[in-house]
Amino acid sequence: MDLLIKNGTIVTAKESFVGDIAIKDGKIVCIGTDLFVDAKKVVNAFGKLVLPGAIDVHTHLAMPFGGTVSADGYLSGTRAAACGGVTTVFDYPIQRKGRGIVETVQERKDMCDPEACVDYAFHCCITDLNEGSILDEFEAAVDFGVTSFKCFLVYKKEGMMVDDGTLVRILKKAKDTGAITNIHAENPDVIDLNISQFKAEGKTSAWYHYLSRPEYVEAEADKRAVHWAKAVDAPLYIVHMADKEGLEAAVAAKREGYDIYIETCPQYLEFTCDVYKREDGRNFVCSPPMKNKESQEALWKAIMDGSIDTVATDHCPFQSYEKDWGKDDFTKIPNGCAGIENLYPYMLSKANEGKISFNRAVELCATNPAKIFGCSQKGSLTVGKDADIVIYDINKDVTISVDNMHSDYDHTIWEGIKVKGYPVQTYVRGTLVYDEGEFVGTPGFGEYVKREPKK
Amino acid sequence: MDLLIKNGTIVTAKESFVGDIAIKDGKIVCIGTDLFVDAKKVVNAFGKLVLPGAIDVHTHLAMPFGGTVSADGYLSGTRAAACGGVTTVFDYPIQRKGRGIVETVQERKDMCDPEACVDYAFHCCITDLNEGSILDEFEAAVDFGVTSFKCFLVYKKEGMMVDDGTLVRILKKAKDTGAITNIHAENPDVIDLNISQFKAEGKTSAWYHYLSRPEYVEAEADKRAVHWAKAVDAPLYIVHMADKEGLEAAVAAKREGYDIYIETCPQYLEFTCDVYKREDGRNFVCSPPMKNKESQEALWKAIMDGSIDTVATDHCPFQSYEKDWGKDDFTKIPNGCAGIENLYPYMLSKANEGKISFNRAVELCATNPAKIFGCSQKGSLTVGKDADIVIYDINKDVTISVDNMHSDYDHTIWEGIKVKGYPVQTYVRGTLVYDEGEFVGTPGFGEYVKREPKK
Amino acid sequence: MDLLIKNGTIVTAKESFVGDIAIKDGKIVCIGTDLFVDAKKVVNAFGKLVLPGAIDVHTHLAMPFGGTVSADGYLSGTRAAACGGVTTVFDYPIQRKGRGIVETVQERKDMCDPEACVDYAFHCCITDLNEGSILDEFEAAVDFGVTSFKCFLVYKKEGMMVDDGTLVRILKKAKDTGAITNIHAENPDVIDLNISQFKAEGKTSAWYHYLSRPEYVEAEADKRAVHWAKAVDAPLYIVHMADKEGLEAAVAAKREGYDIYIETCPQYLEFTCDVYKREDGRNFVCSPPMKNKESQEALWKAIMDGSIDTVATDHCPFQSYEKDWGKDDFTKIPNGCAGIENLYPYMLSKANEGKISFNRAVELCATNPAKIFGCSQKGSLTVGKDADIVIYDINKDVTISVDNMHSDYDHTIWEGIKVKGYPVQTYVRGTLVYDEGEFVGTPGFGEYVKREPKK
Amino acid sequence: MDLLIKNGTIVTAKESFVGDIAIKDGKIVCIGTDLFVDAKKVVNAFGKLVLPGAIDVHTHLAMPFGGTVSADGYLSGTRAAACGGVTTVFDYPIQRKGRGIVETVQERKDMCDPEACVDYAFHCCITDLNEGSILDEFEAAVDFGVTSFKCFLVYKKEGMMVDDGTLVRILKKAKDTGAITNIHAENPDVIDLNISQFKAEGKTSAWYHYLSRPEYVEAEADKRAVHWAKAVDAPLYIVHMADKEGLEAAVAAKREGYDIYIETCPQYLEFTCDVYKREDGRNFVCSPPMKNKESQEALWKAIMDGSIDTVATDHCPFQSYEKDWGKDDFTKIPNGCAGIENLYPYMLSKANEGKISFNRAVELCATNPAKIFGCSQKGSLTVGKDADIVIYDINKDVTISVDNMHSDYDHTIWEGIKVKGYPVQTYVRGTLVYDEGEFVGTPGFGEYVKREPKK
Repeated sequence: MDLLIKNGTIVTAKESFVGDIAIKDGKIVCIGTDLFVDAKKVVNAFGKLVLPGAIDVHTHLAMPFGGTVSADGYLSGTRAAACGGVTTVFDYPIQRKGRGIVETVQERKDMCDPEACVDYAFHCCITDLNEGSILDEFEAAVDFGVTSFKCFLVYKKEGMMVDDGTLVRILKKAKDTGAITNIHAENPDVIDLNISQFKAEGKTSAWYHYLSRPEYVEAEADKRAVHWAKAVDAPLYIVHMADKEGLEAAVAAKREGYDIYIETCPQYLEFTCDVYKREDGRNFVCSPPMKNKESQEALWKAIMDGSIDTVATDHCPFQSYEKDWGKDDFTKIPNGCAGIENLYPYMLSKANEGKISFNRAVELCATNPAKIFGCSQKGSLTVGKDADIVIYDINKDVTISVDNMHSDYDHTIWEGIKVKGYPVQTYVRGTLVYDEGEFVGTPGFGEYVKREPKK
Repeated sequence: MDLLIKNGTIVTAKESFVGDIAIKDGKIVCIGTDLFVDAKKVVNAFGKLVLPGAIDVHTHLAMPFGGTVSADGYLSGTRAAACGGVTTVFDYPIQRKGRGIVETVQERKDMCDPEACVDYAFHCCITDLNEGSILDEFEAAVDFGVTSFKCFLVYKKEGMMVDDGTLVRILKKAKDTGAITNIHAENPDVIDLNISQFKAEGKTSAWYHYLSRPEYVEAEADKRAVHWAKAVDAPLYIVHMADKEGLEAAVAAKREGYDIYIETCPQYLEFTCDVYKREDGRNFVCSPPMKNKESQEALWKAIMDGSIDTVATDHCPFQSYEKDWGKDDFTKIPNGCAGIENLYPYMLSKANEGKISFNRAVELCATNPAKIFGCSQKGSLTVGKDADIVIYDINKDVTISVDNMHSDYDHTIWEGIKVKGYPVQTYVRGTLVYDEGEFVGTPGFGEYVKREPKK
Repeated sequence: MDLLIKNGTIVTAKESFVGDIAIKDGKIVCIGTDLFVDAKKVVNAFGKLVLPGAIDVHTHLAMPFGGTVSADGYLSGTRAAACGGVTTVFDYPIQRKGRGIVETVQERKDMCDPEACVDYAFHCCITDLNEGSILDEFEAAVDFGVTSFKCFLVYKKEGMMVDDGTLVRILKKAKDTGAITNIHAENPDVIDLNISQFKAEGKTSAWYHYLSRPEYVEAEADKRAVHWAKAVDAPLYIVHMADKEGLEAAVAAKREGYDIYIETCPQYLEFTCDVYKREDGRNFVCSPPMKNKESQEALWKAIMDGSIDTVATDHCPFQSYEKDWGKDDFTKIPNGCAGIENLYPYMLSKANEGKISFNRAVELCATNPAKIFGCSQKGSLTVGKDADIVIYDINKDVTISVDNMHSDYDHTIWEGIKVKGYPVQTYVRGTLVYDEGEFVGTPGFGEYVKREPKK
Repeated sequence: MDLLIKNGTIVTAKESFVGDIAIKDGKIVCIGTDLFVDAKKVVNAFGKLVLPGAIDVHTHLAMPFGGTVSADGYLSGTRAAACGGVTTVFDYPIQRKGRGIVETVQERKDMCDPEACVDYAFHCCITDLNEGSILDEFEAAVDFGVTSFKCFLVYKKEGMMVDDGTLVRILKKAKDTGAITNIHAENPDVIDLNISQFKAEGKTSAWYHYLSRPEYVEAEADKRAVHWAKAVDAPLYIVHMADKEGLEAAVAAKREGYDIYIETCPQYLEFTCDVYKREDGRNFVCSPPMKNKESQEALWKAIMDGSIDTVATDHCPFQSYEKDWGKDDFTKIPNGCAGIENLYPYMLSKANEGKISFNRAVELCATNPAKIFGCSQKGSLTVGKDADIVIYDINKDVTISVDNMHSDYDHTIWEGIKVKGYPVQTYVRGTLVYDEGEFVGTPGFGEYVKREPKK
């Protein structure tokens, strides 16, 4: 054996029990009690939790947006991931008009490969059907390991939005190829209307970012996306769900038996729109914005009752000086916030406080993402799977600060938030990459995860 | 007294009772039993029903569409109305880009005035905000007696569609001026997608008209319209509701207390999409198309339980040779069917057969339309109101045929339909305009109905 | 003509308009404008409302209960009715074990006949099937004009409750005979459980009357009654609905098309359970008790959206010294409160304040009760019906007090409540019985209303 | 190691993977791939499924009922269990009036102990509060390992029913002691009414067993039980759910977050009420009876979407001659059918056919029962738990017949049913008790499972 993790409390999506895990060639080969095996390295996890590594299925690394590029590149982003217990990162390359999917992804894969500190995969955002040729490329994309395609129902003026007809074509083709369609749901026309009215009235603070994209702006697009998915009976994955009404529509469709999945993000669980009234409100600007208390409570209810499937970060930080561009005009603030290193500690802290079970935290952050997105070797502490493992100390409390994070950004919306319990070690395929607060991995060690289509 | 209608069974939206109605100067001045008054003319209605004249709030007369003009002009259309017991007709002028509302309506009013055989009013279809100046004109339009504005959520390529932002602006402004927004709800992008796929597959019969605009195409837009009306809490009137899912969403919102009204048409109650499989399926082409049996049953249920507010016709007939343009290509068929003369006989026949009460038929075709659209002098047999009256013989059965109709079209979808009971006389403001199968009125007698805003 | 009421604003369940009403032989014979008819008596109603008299379909006059008899007999009760604009009163005789329906009602009719100041009718409470012979008597009861039978789902120890099997038999037989089943819905076992626990804990104030019969105690029985009515598809009328959950279940069933009717009472609309914390809380003790704010708001919503069909009083007052029996033990307080004279002024005041329309108040208190319970000559200002008329002054404000009421009780829960607007005259079949604060009728003038079964 | 099961496909409630299981002292000590450990016995499970043993949480062994005793005693019942892959059996002792819980259970435990072929536990049916002393005994019962108490809402005349007040007391006390209340939901009054009517009409075949206990009879009691559980926020477990309406009410409450669990039985999934029209319909008589197709479909939907928590058998067979007592009178048929040996093969067969996943079958029959009823050492193939294991051959098809079953009954409702795949070995705590069609265990080997309360 290469590695033996002994006497930890092993937590799966369903159960918790005390035992040992033996690892060889990057795989879990044995789980048991009192395993008497030779191992090159033995870790005593007594009194600690042994968890599957998290999978952050929603990040934007090195992403050009709002006239700049997001503050974390592939190196710093995946380094931060490792230090937050995330062992696989999904990035969102965006198709430029006229280009192909594999071409788009390959370019990003080439960028990521030498820098990746943990394993990585790609969704692909579709912005142009190229007169239909993109649809013809879906099979090739799936063969390449890209089994999910994202559509924006917003960013119309930015040229990224797809209309409803295009969405329906993508939904159908994705279904036919065993892939799934991801959706960013907001309504651009009504956002623009609101913005133009606020601007005309001289209302330009970050608070009006929220008021121009309130609950109903997101809910409309959520409901529309669910409608089309039901109409053609195709799988749908709604990213960063943040409002109650859209959530309820999606949950209702799930319960009717439709193949619909819901993601939310830690920032919607922790913050409400009130943050936009703060002096530094612009730093919290992301789209969709944080919503009201009622929506937040609905999200937590769905976290607790199993209706939400995944939690991921939409990690897309910008530097303070970039956020400052919108000091006097909320429309000039680059949209996006940090989160990749906070996801698992935050959700596990909520488990540690008793709000959810550790099993549910594992399900949301690791097991479900792997299942939904076809990573059969990831997401679970099961014999035969990749040894992506986090050792978690329930007694180690941490106050999050930009100073103890491992990204390249210069501030974080999570500054000052206290979490109860914290990861102390992260293993990717059996190799230690994070140890007691320090990144100890190697850029380029991370491997591309070729995902599998649904059968 | 000018006129005394004696011993009829007077039917209101709530009750039925035997009595006399006395009329003077075009108004109902007295309702009673055994009225001993002098009258210039006495009509014995013993054994007959005495009903308020119907109000057809949805017609397209002399309307340019699909490269031609609808087959009924103001004269023949209102003549047919009179012969079908309709005493007030609402027409739908369509704003041409860049023009004003009053300008648009005035032009049509000038056309209609010398020809009108019954009273008439106008909604106005908004296709262009003229950079906002149209909104500024809403007060003037309301003062002019136009208190309802229609938005198309479809006909994008035809340049008539409004986007969601524009819709929201109209909803808000209409509310502020005591007006109401009418909606034609279908989704153009998905229709176009379906059409292009069917065309590519050589599927061009009338049946594909239905399949390119199936239930889900209408339902999406219904739900979206309801969503925005709720978001800004503005009144909404959905025209020609034809599908179950959209209906249910609208009814749910009504029950939450929102100011939402639903219209359906006789053709959706009588026919299903199966008509498009007929040899002459193209003659039934209208938008939205007839839907499946499940939707039809949902419409009838809502007719019966009070959820639907009005029945109107969307009267927009075309000649056979025009319909034939689309013999080999359903997209070339001018959209629209006849109905203005069939509305009241059809709904009253259903009452006569026991499916609904006569009171409910009166409510749907007369009382509710008057209330919703601000015609305080119309819609009800009440002391003080206009003497718009229909005398109805429950024993006179008629088989509808183009030969016994009073329009200018050369065929009708209602050909061969039998109705049980039929109007025998129609009075507009106390003046007989239809008598035992014959039009006896005078073109130009009809007056413009200046409507009142909601307070 | 015997009477001409001129220039009032005539209010029906659907409309309001200015006009005159002419009356002959106790019937409305003519409604019109500027009626020039000779009449023995002319009343100028200019500036006033002219309304149909209210029908209080829920009273307990001279009722033995809790070891005493309710404080209003037939004379004082119907006198108070007249002075509150109520022109027909329904009383609830209770079958004694072993006795027949007609026997039970006849006894009460004999008591009422010489005393009745307004017209009157009877439901009958069934407490014993007499081994089935009661069911055999339903036809005779209906012929006698009793077309509604009440079942208690509570008062088990008092011997008045029927079990579910008996209820189902009554529902079916009532349906077969064109009658309807009324239900008092509360769950006795759980009430008894609560009472015994409170008593054991020494909790005996009026507040524990509420806590022993909280929302869920009523809701359970409401839902059960609705369940059985749906199971056998029989008409059901739920009396004094007071809680949100039961209300919602009943409304849902109505909307599915079941023949279910809902009554609430003014006391549930005006007061909440907080009254039981008052010093004089015992005076408010009735069953079901007033409920919480949430239930009250649900009742008002249903009043406003049309879901509730009727408002009636459950009038059953007791004298102060009788209420005092339960000063130290809420189980000894006779259950019941006054209301017969407050019903119409209260609901009309709410209309006058703008909360509902006057039309809706008329529908709830007069038109619907007449329709549901087969009083074809009552409930509406329609040509041919009984001239049961109230003239209402919208500018006359009154503060309710036991001193200005016309009953025999010595206190009232309505003491100090201010109403905006008040009835100034009441006519029963064209005869004035109340005039400007004074009863001017004649005991014994009231007639028995023989009701008609549903066809 | 005592036992090593190699190379099987290990199936948990969440996942399936190929691996080995090592067992020592009756416990699972290691799960891995290519385990090189010494073991006294090695089983090659290559190509087979390795599943946790099922837990049948609903049986009536040696139960006095209907004037006889159920046909399977503890020996034959648990022997059949072993041969059907059931490794733990829950029996339902019924309290005799006046007796205590531990007393009741101890008596049965003494009977079972020397005969048990697999492990066993007890619920306890409460029929009498003994003036409250039974409630005082709940803590002692929980200490004894009995953490669930059943109430009958039916069997009123048989003296087993509890009224609603008693139910509420039990719900509350069970909650306070970490126990759960089980419910048999049917309405006795309406059953009795139906029976007496059918008898009066001479309708006595088995078909009338169904018609006297149709959907609405069960649904009412389901809804009532859910109502009280919600009212006092106490855990509730509804046994043998068989109808759609009750199911929907229970599922709705679960989704609101209430602690409500639902069990159904294989017979409701396989048969509909049509069986009662068969010649041998009486053999299918159990209560509740099989329901209509619509209910069956709703059950399957809930099986598939996760709304139903467990499947158990209500095993309570009677001999043919006993069933024959009711040949001419359905009320004389002893209620109950066989199932204990069919549960797991049936559900696994449905998985094998693709209707549900094997993981879901395991969750329903093993993992959930263990969790809900506090068997922390059972229900899952997890390191540290009891080695209760079934080896399942997906290619072995079996036609069920009384001849190949291991009970003492002389007929079975499952006769002729074909299942796809079958258990080939059953291990209880690592000891082989069933092997290729033969019982190979030892009566008395089974141990009492002391269950744990909820914390």
